[in-house]
Amino acid sequence: MVNVGIIGAGRIGQVHARSILTGVPDARILSIADPYMSESVAAWAREAGIEGVYKDHRKIMEDPRVEAVLICSSTDTHAQLSLEAIAAGKHVFCEKPIDQKLDRIGEVKAALAASPKSLKYQVGFNRRFDHNFRALKDAVDAGKIGEVQFIRVSSRDPEPPPAGYVKGSGGIFLDMMIHDLDMLRYLSGSEIEEVYATGAVLIDPAIGAAGDVDTATVSARMKNGALALIDNSRKAVYGYDQRAEVFGSKGCVACGNDTASSAVLSTAEGVVSEKPLWFFLQRYMGSYQAEVRLFIESVVKDTPVAVGVADGLLSIKLGLACKKSMEEHRPVRIDEINP
Amino acid sequence: MVNVGIIGAGRIGQVHARSILTGVPDARILSIADPYMSESVAAWAREAGIEGVYKDHRKIMEDPRVEAVLICSSTDTHAQLSLEAIAAGKHVFCEKPIDQKLDRIGEVKAALAASPKSLKYQVGFNRRFDHNFRALKDAVDAGKIGEVQFIRVSSRDPEPPPAGYVKGSGGIFLDMMIHDLDMLRYLSGSEIEEVYATGAVLIDPAIGAAGDVDTATVSARMKNGALALIDNSRKAVYGYDQRAEVFGSKGCVACGNDTASSAVLSTAEGVVSEKPLWFFLQRYMGSYQAEVRLFIESVVKDTPVAVGVADGLLSIKLGLACKKSMEEHRPVRIDEINP
Amino acid sequence: MVNVGIIGAGRIGQVHARSILTGVPDARILSIADPYMSESVAAWAREAGIEGVYKDHRKIMEDPRVEAVLICSSTDTHAQLSLEAIAAGKHVFCEKPIDQKLDRIGEVKAALAASPKSLKYQVGFNRRFDHNFRALKDAVDAGKIGEVQFIRVSSRDPEPPPAGYVKGSGGIFLDMMIHDLDMLRYLSGSEIEEVYATGAVLIDPAIGAAGDVDTATVSARMKNGALALIDNSRKAVYGYDQRAEVFGSKGCVACGNDTASSAVLSTAEGVVSEKPLWFFLQRYMGSYQAEVRLFIESVVKDTPVAVGVADGLLSIKLGLACKKSMEEHRPVRIDEINP
Amino acid sequence: MVNVGIIGAGRIGQVHARSILTGVPDARILSIADPYMSESVAAWAREAGIEGVYKDHRKIMEDPRVEAVLICSSTDTHAQLSLEAIAAGKHVFCEKPIDQKLDRIGEVKAALAASPKSLKYQVGFNRRFDHNFRALKDAVDAGKIGEVQFIRVSSRDPEPPPAGYVKGSGGIFLDMMIHDLDMLRYLSGSEIEEVYATGAVLIDPAIGAAGDVDTATVSARMKNGALALIDNSRKAVYGYDQRAEVFGSKGCVACGNDTASSAVLSTAEGVVSEKPLWFFLQRYMGSYQAEVRLFIESVVKDTPVAVGVADGLLSIKLGLACKKSMEEHRPVRIDEINP
Repeated sequence: MVNVGIIGAGRIGQVHARSILTGVPDARILSIADPYMSESVAAWAREAGIEGVYKDHRKIMEDPRVEAVLICSSTDTHAQLSLEAIAAGKHVFCEKPIDQKLDRIGEVKAALAASPKSLKYQVGFNRRFDHNFRALKDAVDAGKIGEVQFIRVSSRDPEPPPAGYVKGSGGIFLDMMIHDLDMLRYLSGSEIEEVYATGAVLIDPAIGAAGDVDTATVSARMKNGALALIDNSRKAVYGYDQRAEVFGSKGCVACGNDTASSAVLSTAEGVVSEKPLWFFLQRYMGSYQAEVRLFIESVVKDTPVAVGVADGLLSIKLGLACKKSMEEHRPVRIDEINP
Repeated sequence: MVNVGIIGAGRIGQVHARSILTGVPDARILSIADPYMSESVAAWAREAGIEGVYKDHRKIMEDPRVEAVLICSSTDTHAQLSLEAIAAGKHVFCEKPIDQKLDRIGEVKAALAASPKSLKYQVGFNRRFDHNFRALKDAVDAGKIGEVQFIRVSSRDPEPPPAGYVKGSGGIFLDMMIHDLDMLRYLSGSEIEEVYATGAVLIDPAIGAAGDVDTATVSARMKNGALALIDNSRKAVYGYDQRAEVFGSKGCVACGNDTASSAVLSTAEGVVSEKPLWFFLQRYMGSYQAEVRLFIESVVKDTPVAVGVADGLLSIKLGLACKKSMEEHRPVRIDEINP
Repeated sequence: MVNVGIIGAGRIGQVHARSILTGVPDARILSIADPYMSESVAAWAREAGIEGVYKDHRKIMEDPRVEAVLICSSTDTHAQLSLEAIAAGKHVFCEKPIDQKLDRIGEVKAALAASPKSLKYQVGFNRRFDHNFRALKDAVDAGKIGEVQFIRVSSRDPEPPPAGYVKGSGGIFLDMMIHDLDMLRYLSGSEIEEVYATGAVLIDPAIGAAGDVDTATVSARMKNGALALIDNSRKAVYGYDQRAEVFGSKGCVACGNDTASSAVLSTAEGVVSEKPLWFFLQRYMGSYQAEVRLFIESVVKDTPVAVGVADGLLSIKLGLACKKSMEEHRPVRIDEINP
Repeated sequence: MVNVGIIGAGRIGQVHARSILTGVPDARILSIADPYMSESVAAWAREAGIEGVYKDHRKIMEDPRVEAVLICSSTDTHAQLSLEAIAAGKHVFCEKPIDQKLDRIGEVKAALAASPKSLKYQVGFNRRFDHNFRALKDAVDAGKIGEVQFIRVSSRDPEPPPAGYVKGSGGIFLDMMIHDLDMLRYLSGSEIEEVYATGAVLIDPAIGAAGDVDTATVSARMKNGALALIDNSRKAVYGYDQRAEVFGSKGCVACGNDTASSAVLSTAEGVVSEKPLWFFLQRYMGSYQAEVRLFIESVVKDTPVAVGVADGLLSIKLGLACKKSMEEHRPVRIDEINP
């Protein structure tokens, strides 16, 4: 039984708390902290049997019973909290991104390496644990499509974030496409060598005014020779569109969207099936639970984490390379990006 | 918060226990009883925080704190336990069937009516709470297919039960097709007037030797004029096949099977998608949780249960009518079946 | 090169003429006859290079160059024209049904047997030559689903025929379900032993007033032990619904509808694909051409026809058995039906 | 009735001949010419009623009765034959590409403009007439997806061409992707402004030795602001993979592959549907007939052709821009490409 503390009681913090309460029997939530903790959330936490409900996260860091910390606070605090947790000798599950700056992630990496304890540090790339993408990965790993030659990822949000959010988000490549870039690595079992990115403001001029784009593509070349394409949109009116396809010498494996039911209605107007599940909380709930379960398992069994600090670092490099490519209007090698 | 006792700690009892623990915040399991409770199940129950772990179910019946009882024991004890629970003034969720004999169900019905308390009594027709069938029902109720004219249900198990089970099961119509007959009522919003059943032993001669069939169809006529067809097989090698279709004056709505993922593999051999989920525990887990959640809600809000004793009684009548039809090789009206 | 005469220049006569002109290089249409031949059809025929365009079909019968006759006239003339053609020593392709009366079909059968020439006589059960149903048959014949245990056919028209047509049609079982009954034989490779039919008037009261039903089902038992279900409706607002499914010990093979394109439109309203092709002329054009091509091939190579007079006779028996079953409200064995 | 001469009696020449014979009633093939005409093809042509069967195409050019010429010879003769036909005052349907060199296409364009007759000149971009892509175009034109923001085309051959073919083909961008580049223009109703291409030799080293790639992608930017992605492979072992998707402010429309039947086989191994039709002759037969029918209609009605010499010219520019982009490893604007 691993004693856990959760830092950040917002949407994703609550998701992880519920995951542990309902589906991770090897973990127990000792405490949860959030400087802006609402009364209703605090009440919910107490009712769920969480002993410590705090405003100040240091109560978690200082509690010697807490073995692992889940960092679910705002992005700009991830690196600092990671450092504090490592210093306190606690295993860490950190929501992505660790930081938008490579230097800061480097500090976390160094702290981990320097820790006298063998600490686990997992980054929240939840899609790797999704049933659809995992089925693709399993097919690839089982050799069913032979040598990987081409990968495609389509990822489209149902509605754009507010322009205010966009400003601090690091832009579409760091905020949104980072998942898809990680997916290329995950599905291919290879590394990205070079990217060429395009972007456009086609949905919301306020996003453009905030210095970002709302529609983007990337053409990538993998180290194993495979080519890859990604497309992103901030607004697919039909819902959260999350698809991928891996093509190889022996075949192709692709996944589609999840829906609330398999019902198909045929009328004089057409043959209508359900739209994709609306957004990430509906679509990826299973993967959120799976990633936390595996993190706890890594702690319990002392096995390597599925997505570590090096993956977190690399994902930022990839996002920065895409951003640079779009800005400089040329292909950019990943090894051009350095702290 | 409703205090619950569970009688029967076998497969379905554990399913309902887990449902409550992970997804029914308004209920608390006080106790669980099973004369054959294994040590491992008892240990699991204690670890899950269930206070009373008993061999004798009477400890549950006698506990005044227990407000609702879930009857998950073997079929032949359902009616007796129902009577005891009603006598003890407890709300009841009873797995289907209440009994194979109409008289016994009648006794339960009478006891309920005679109870000085307004007790809830729900029967476990879980498929009514399944996301796919519910989507069909919603479409019908919303008038999207107009007047219902025809209904079809296909229900096929992945593997036949042992012949030993078959003997006590009441036969395919009471054991298996009972769900599909209930589905006709649920989807059409009408009652079955007459059935014509056929059966054959095509899969396992031992099932025939036990006096049952392993393949069966029913042609039914509904009171609202609609026609209906059901097909059952005890062995679909590709997995649990659970489909339905409702056709009407304005269209048709149909549902297919659920799969573990949406992955599609294209190779030189063909274009392959996943098989249906293997069996009811995989396929209907969501509906098991939903039905218990709604039962607890009925208790909390004092609202009518979704599937009551009258539905349980009728389902047995329908199964017996099908059996009689097959045996007498003629169409049988439901009102021919009486205690 | 087989010289062909076509009797009947209505819709289906024109379909077969076009089939030969565009896709049956081994046949040449010498002549076409219709007592009600319109000027425009006559002009079209002449332009297409058809030498003889007549009102009187006897000119075809008497032409010694004509080796094969396609009978595409109204149903009540099929048997008489068949007899004339056989007497004239010509091969015959006859649209279904040969006749609604068994005696008359018997006369055709006897005439064929008595003919000094080895004449080919094919009946127009075109669906046997459809790409989808043929793929099902191929899978069954290749043993891919093992022993056939259950068959289902759904057949729904997009709009009901005028009540006036219904009167002379012989009723839904002889006019419409006859195709589906033939499909059971075709797909199972076995014969129907017994049927139980239900019918209802749910679409058009005028059809009821004409003594027919517009919605019908059949539950059948095959000689090899398999069970079967058919459903028919005269009005599926979403188009011509033509599906079948064959289930066996090793699996299940099913076919869906054909559409004009594979386009799928996802919007805020839903995910919409195309409706089935509207009716038989759109849906079965390929099978009409295939059946005539195979008929000509039988003539050229002197091989047995794919669907002969015995099949035509049996299909009427099956339709009459269904009708009797519905009228007498009981299962009817096919061997109860005799001339 | 338009009198037609066909130059080139190879595979595609025969396809067009058959299209006219079976489905273009307004055209009559007077003659066909091929320097390498085989005896069997000549015999087939004569039997089909084609009066002139020649080795020398000049007999067609000199025949005053011939109004329109279909140029189906090898690519390197297209421009020369086009010039001859225009000089002879004949309408031209020319297989793509007109030429690999812009100058030569410019000569054809100039000759057309200079012709005293108003000649029709159509280029063989058959996919514009395919039922699936046309359905996408119709949805876009009807405003069903709103403003176009993103387009994706996947085009994969079932097997690579021989390396010998590759040398003269102009490379994958001119030989294969040219269709997909045209599709971007067709589906978006806008022009391509800039492309960035990548390529790799992953399938057949002989293709690399011949100076070409066998796997390629293009990232494009359209003049209306939309982004686009194309992926090409010379070898998809599961068959000819031809899909497209257009995404916009109000939704998304996508098409999949065509199959020989809709049959789906479910067994213990999986749920298997049919592979895509094998290659272009199977997949695009309908579009070949449609394009010739529309060409003849343009001649008869004196209406503009659907795809003219300007489209043919532009497609070569696009292919050359992609080639240059891959070679120079940078994005290339289309207006950089000039004769």
